[in-house]
Amino acid sequence: MTQVGVIMGSKSDWETMKHACDVLEQLGVSYEKKVVSAHRTPDLMFTYAEEARDRGLKVIIAGAGGAAHLPGMVAAKTTLPVIGVPVQSRALNGLDSLLSIVQMPGGVPVATVAIGKAGAVNAGLLAAQIIATEDVVLAERIAARREATRQEVLESSDQLV
Amino acid sequence: MTQVGVIMGSKSDWETMKHACDVLEQLGVSYEKKVVSAHRTPDLMFTYAEEARDRGLKVIIAGAGGAAHLPGMVAAKTTLPVIGVPVQSRALNGLDSLLSIVQMPGGVPVATVAIGKAGAVNAGLLAAQIIATEDVVLAERIAARREATRQEVLESSDQLV
Amino acid sequence: MTQVGVIMGSKSDWETMKHACDVLEQLGVSYEKKVVSAHRTPDLMFTYAEEARDRGLKVIIAGAGGAAHLPGMVAAKTTLPVIGVPVQSRALNGLDSLLSIVQMPGGVPVATVAIGKAGAVNAGLLAAQIIATEDVVLAERIAARREATRQEVLESSDQLV
Amino acid sequence: MTQVGVIMGSKSDWETMKHACDVLEQLGVSYEKKVVSAHRTPDLMFTYAEEARDRGLKVIIAGAGGAAHLPGMVAAKTTLPVIGVPVQSRALNGLDSLLSIVQMPGGVPVATVAIGKAGAVNAGLLAAQIIATEDVVLAERIAARREATRQEVLESSDQLV
Amino acid sequence: MTQVGVIMGSKSDWETMKHACDVLEQLGVSYEKKVVSAHRTPDLMFTYAEEARDRGLKVIIAGAGGAAHLPGMVAAKTTLPVIGVPVQSRALNGLDSLLSIVQMPGGVPVATVAIGKAGAVNAGLLAAQIIATEDVVLAERIAARREATRQEVLESSDQLV
Amino acid sequence: MTQVGVIMGSKSDWETMKHACDVLEQLGVSYEKKVVSAHRTPDLMFTYAEEARDRGLKVIIAGAGGAAHLPGMVAAKTTLPVIGVPVQSRALNGLDSLLSIVQMPGGVPVATVAIGKAGAVNAGLLAAQIIATEDVVLAERIAARREATRQEVLESSDQLV
Amino acid sequence: MTQVGVIMGSKSDWETMKHACDVLEQLGVSYEKKVVSAHRTPDLMFTYAEEARDRGLKVIIAGAGGAAHLPGMVAAKTTLPVIGVPVQSRALNGLDSLLSIVQMPGGVPVATVAIGKAGAVNAGLLAAQIIATEDVVLAERIAARREATRQEVLESSDQLV
Amino acid sequence: MTQVGVIMGSKSDWETMKHACDVLEQLGVSYEKKVVSAHRTPDLMFTYAEEARDRGLKVIIAGAGGAAHLPGMVAAKTTLPVIGVPVQSRALNGLDSLLSIVQMPGGVPVATVAIGKAGAVNAGLLAAQIIATEDVVLAERIAARREATRQEVLESSDQLV
Repeated sequence: MTQVGVIMGSKSDWETMKHACDVLEQLGVSYEKKVVSAHRTPDLMFTYAEEARDRGLKVIIAGAGGAAHLPGMVAAKTTLPVIGVPVQSRALNGLDSLLSIVQMPGGVPVATVAIGKAGAVNAGLLAAQIIATEDVVLAERIAARREATRQEVLESSDQLV
Repeated sequence: MTQVGVIMGSKSDWETMKHACDVLEQLGVSYEKKVVSAHRTPDLMFTYAEEARDRGLKVIIAGAGGAAHLPGMVAAKTTLPVIGVPVQSRALNGLDSLLSIVQMPGGVPVATVAIGKAGAVNAGLLAAQIIATEDVVLAERIAARREATRQEVLESSDQLV
Repeated sequence: MTQVGVIMGSKSDWETMKHACDVLEQLGVSYEKKVVSAHRTPDLMFTYAEEARDRGLKVIIAGAGGAAHLPGMVAAKTTLPVIGVPVQSRALNGLDSLLSIVQMPGGVPVATVAIGKAGAVNAGLLAAQIIATEDVVLAERIAARREATRQEVLESSDQLV
Repeated sequence: MTQVGVIMGSKSDWETMKHACDVLEQLGVSYEKKVVSAHRTPDLMFTYAEEARDRGLKVIIAGAGGAAHLPGMVAAKTTLPVIGVPVQSRALNGLDSLLSIVQMPGGVPVATVAIGKAGAVNAGLLAAQIIATEDVVLAERIAARREATRQEVLESSDQLV
Repeated sequence: MTQVGVIMGSKSDWETMKHACDVLEQLGVSYEKKVVSAHRTPDLMFTYAEEARDRGLKVIIAGAGGAAHLPGMVAAKTTLPVIGVPVQSRALNGLDSLLSIVQMPGGVPVATVAIGKAGAVNAGLLAAQIIATEDVVLAERIAARREATRQEVLESSDQLV
Repeated sequence: MTQVGVIMGSKSDWETMKHACDVLEQLGVSYEKKVVSAHRTPDLMFTYAEEARDRGLKVIIAGAGGAAHLPGMVAAKTTLPVIGVPVQSRALNGLDSLLSIVQMPGGVPVATVAIGKAGAVNAGLLAAQIIATEDVVLAERIAARREATRQEVLESSDQLV
Repeated sequence: MTQVGVIMGSKSDWETMKHACDVLEQLGVSYEKKVVSAHRTPDLMFTYAEEARDRGLKVIIAGAGGAAHLPGMVAAKTTLPVIGVPVQSRALNGLDSLLSIVQMPGGVPVATVAIGKAGAVNAGLLAAQIIATEDVVLAERIAARREATRQEVLESSDQLV
Repeated sequence: MTQVGVIMGSKSDWETMKHACDVLEQLGVSYEKKVVSAHRTPDLMFTYAEEARDRGLKVIIAGAGGAAHLPGMVAAKTTLPVIGVPVQSRALNGLDSLLSIVQMPGGVPVATVAIGKAGAVNAGLLAAQIIATEDVVLAERIAARREATRQEVLESSDQLV
C-alpha cells in the first residue's frame, strides 16, 4: 500500500519535488506522485485529500509556489499530516510561497519545510520520520542515512583548499 | 437579487470587512455577508463559489488574514470577479495576507486591494464600479461619492493648525 | 467599440503586458494598447483616463514598475475598474511595484494582480470576467478556457519523470 | 508513557506554548513540558534529544524566538519528528524566529508551523495527527474536534452585526 | 513671496508634516501649507504643481503615506525640486510609503527623506539648504541651528544615569 | 567654478554613478568626480565635505552601497544639499544601501533617490534642478530635456509589437 | 585605566545601552559612557575614535538607530574592536539600524549584535569576552555568570503553569 | 599555537570563508580550518567548542547559511569570542542566515559581520583586531594594511573613466 502521496501544483514544481521522491526511494518508503493544482483542479484536490486516509496514505507532501494554497487546502480536507514545500517563486524568491504555506490559522496545521530543494529533501525525510514512529526498521534506515551524512561532513574538511 | 457576496474567513475579520458593506450600502448595491472559512468550512466555500453565478451574484468580495486562501480558492471555483481583502494579521501586519492573496498563478485572478480598512472600503467601491460598467445610475452615484470626497479634501486644508 | 484599454508606463513593460493582450485576444475581447507614462506624459495619462468611459472602454489595465503610479493615478481620474499589474523591477524584484499599486487609500481602488507575467495573464482574464458579468457568451468562453487548463493539468502528471 | 515532549527556550515562551499543551490535553495525548534552552542549557538540550526516542516519546514540539536554534538542534540529535513553533519576537515580530526555524539544510527537517499562538495550537494538533497515523481512536477525536470547529464557523455568521 | 510649498495627501498627515513647517518657521523661510491629494484631488494637484514655479515657489515638500503618489506626481508636473516625506502607514509602517516615493524612474527625481517625523524635520531643513545655496544669511542660520544641536548633544552625556 | 561634486565610496560604484555625470554633462552643469570612501578614507571625506562650500560647490552627489555611510557623513559635515544614491548591493539588492542612506535622524537630511542607475540619473537631474532654482537658462534646459523625454514616450507606443 | 568605551548616538539610546553597562559592571570591567553622535558631533566622534587606543581602551561599544552610522564610522577611525548595537527604531523596528551597522564593506569590521536590549546585554558580554582572551580571572567570572544563567533556566521549568 | 579556528557548516561555504583565511594569512595570524556542521555533526561541534579555549584558540570564526545555527551553538559552548559570518543563501540571499546568526538572546553573543565575502574578510580582520588588543606588532600590521587600503582608494579616482 502506498504510504506517501507527493503532489505539486504544477509540472514545473517537479524539478524541486523530485528530491522528496528521491529520499523516499532511498529509504524504501512507497509513494505516488501527481500534479494536483489547488487553483486549476480544485475538485481533484478535494477528492485526493478526502480519500487519502482511506486509500492508506500516512502522509501527504504538497509543494507549491507563489500564493501556494495546495498544502493548506489539502490539510483542510484531511486529518493526515500534511507537509508543505515552498517552491522558489520567480519574483519573490519563495518568500510568498513560504508565508502562504506556513501562516495557517489555528486548527489546520501544515508542517512547513525550507524553500526549494533543501525543503523537498527534508519533506521526504520528515515523512519517513513520521512513518518511522511506528516502524523500527525504517527508523534504523533513517539513522543510517544520517550517519552516512555525518561521515561525509567529517571527510569534507580535507577538501578545503 | 443580491449583487455582491461579502464573505470572510472568520468572525474577527468583520471589524475590517464591515467597511466594504458600508460602502455597498451607501451606494445602494445589494449584498449579503457570511463567514466562510477556507480551512474550517472548505465544502461550504466550494458550494458558495459554485452557486454564486446562478444565484445572480455579480461580484464576490472575500477577506482573510495570514495564509489567506479564501479569495484564491473561491476564484478557483467561479468565473465571477473575486476581490480579495488582505486582513491585517497579528505577527506580520498583513504582509502574509497580501502575498497569499495577490500572488495567484496565471489562470485564476484575484483583484487584490490594500491591507485592512482602506482595502475593505475599496473592495466595496470596486465591486460597485464593476457593476456600474453596465449600470449608469450606479455609475453616477459613484461619481457623486467621489465628488463629495473631493470637496472634503478641499475643505480640510483650513484645518491644518 | 474597444472594451479594454491596456496601458503601460514604458515600452520595456511590453514584454510583460503582452500576456494580458494575448489573453484578451484569445477570448475575443477587443482592446487597444498604448504607452502612457505617469511621470513622463502626465497630461496624456489624465486625458486618457478622463475620456475612457465616454470612449466606451469598460476596463483599463495598467502595468508599471518601481514607484508604479500609473494604475493609481488613472484610477483617480476615472470610475471605470482599473486593474494594476506590478511589473518586476530590477533591484527590488517588483515588491516596490506591488506596494505602490496595491496600497491605495480608501476611495480609489486599484484591482491589483500578481507581479510579472502571471499577473499580466490574470489582468487579461480579470478584465474579461468583469465584462462577462453582463456577457453570457464571453462567460462561456472563459469557462471553456478554464476547462482546457484543467485538462492540461490532469495530463501533466504523466510527465513527471 | 509520555507521547509528546513540549519544550521551549525560555519561561517567557510559555504564554505561547501553553496553547500546544491545551490541545494535547483536549485530545487526550500525554505530554510533558520543560524549559530547555539551546543557548543557555546546550548539554541538557542534547541529552533531552538523544534520550527522547528511548524514553518513548513519539514527537517533540519545540518553541523558540529570535535566533531560534532549539527546534533545529533538537532535530539534529534525534530522528523523531520535531515540530518548531516560531515565538513572536520583540523587534522583528517573529520573522527572525520563523526563518531560523524553517530554513534548515537538507538532511535535518523541522516541521514548522505559524508564528505565535496559532502556530502553537497547530503544533499540538500536528503532533496528534502524527500519532494518529497509527491510532484510530485519536484520529476520530481529531476529526470530531475539526467538526466542532466547523460548526462554530457556521454559527458565527449570525453574529456579523 | 512664498518660498516653500508644503503639501500633504490628507489632513491626518499634518501631525507629521507640521515638523517640516516648524523648521521652516525657525529658519525664517516663508512657506504655505495645503492638503492636496493625488487620488482625491488630482486636478488640484496638477494645477498646484504647474503654477508653482510661476508663483515663485523654490521648493515643494510633499508628504504622503501608503501608495504615496503625491510627491512623484507633483515632480512629474514641475521642474522645481520636490522633497518627498514618507508618512508612517498603519499596516506596513511606512515601508510602502518609502518605496512608492523613492523608487522613481529615471527622468523625474523626488528627494526622499526618512519615514515619519525625522523625515519631516529634514524635509524642512533640506528645503532651507536648497534655498541657502544662493542665500548667505539663511546658510548662516542653518549653520547656527546645527551648532546649537551639537551643543545639545555634548551636554546630554551628563544625563546618562 | 565647479558646481557639483560627484563622489562615490568605491571605484566599482562608477558604473552606476557615471549616469549622474552624463546627465550633468548633457545639461551643461560643471562637475568633478572622485572616489571618497567613508570607511577607507574618512579624513579625506571630512575634508572634502568641510571645504565644499568654500570651493564653490552648490550640491554634492554621493553614491554608496551596503552600509552606505558616505552620503550621511558628508551631510553631517556640510550644510550644502547632499543627494544620496543607493548603489545596488550584492546580497540584499540595495535595500541595505537605501535604508542606510534614507533613514537619517532629524537634523541632517540626505536627499535620497532610487536604487541603482535610475537613481543616479535622477541625482544628476535633481542637482541641476536645485541649481536651476536660481538659473533660468538651466531651468529651460531641464524643461527641454523633459519635453524630449515626453516625445520619446509618445512615439514608443508604435513599437509595441 | 578604562577598558571599554560605551557610546551612543543619542541620549534616548541610553534606555537600551544601559544594559551593556550593567553587564560590564557585574563583571568588573571598567567602562565609560558618552553620547557621541555621528551626524551631530562628527568631529567629536573622530577624535574619540582616534584617541581610543592611546587612552588605553580595549573595546568600543557603539549603539545607534535608523541610519546608524556611529559604529561603522568609529570602526573606520580605530583598529580596536568595535561592537555595534542596533537600537530599535520607530518605523522599521530596527531592521534599518541592523542593516546599516552589519553590512560594512570589506576592510572595516563592526561586530554586530542583536537589535535592542538583548543586543546591548550581549555587547557588554562580548566586550568582556574579548578582554578575557588575556585575562583569566575575568574569563572565570564570565563562566560563572553563564553557569548562573544555566541554573536559572533549569529551575524555571517548575514555573510553567 | 593556533590562534583562530575557522569553521564552516558545509564544504560549499569555503568559497566564502577562504577570504577570512586569506586575511589571517596576510596578517600572520595562525589559524586552522575545518568543516563542522551544527546539524550533521552536532557532537563534533560541541567538542570543538568545548576544547577550543584549552587548545589555546583565542577566537572562533564560524560561517553558515540558511538556518545558520553553527555560530550561535558554538558560542553557547565556549566563552571565547565567536564571530559569525552569514553565508549568502540561495532563496533568501542570506537574510535568513543574517537573522539566524545575529538575533541571539541575551547571554550568548555572536559578533556578526556582513553577508558573504565582505563579511568573511571582516571576520578575519576582526579576529586579528581582537588578538591585537594585546599584541602591538599585530596591531601595527593591521594599521599598515588599512593604510595600504587607503592608498588604493586615493589612487582609484584616476580610474573613473
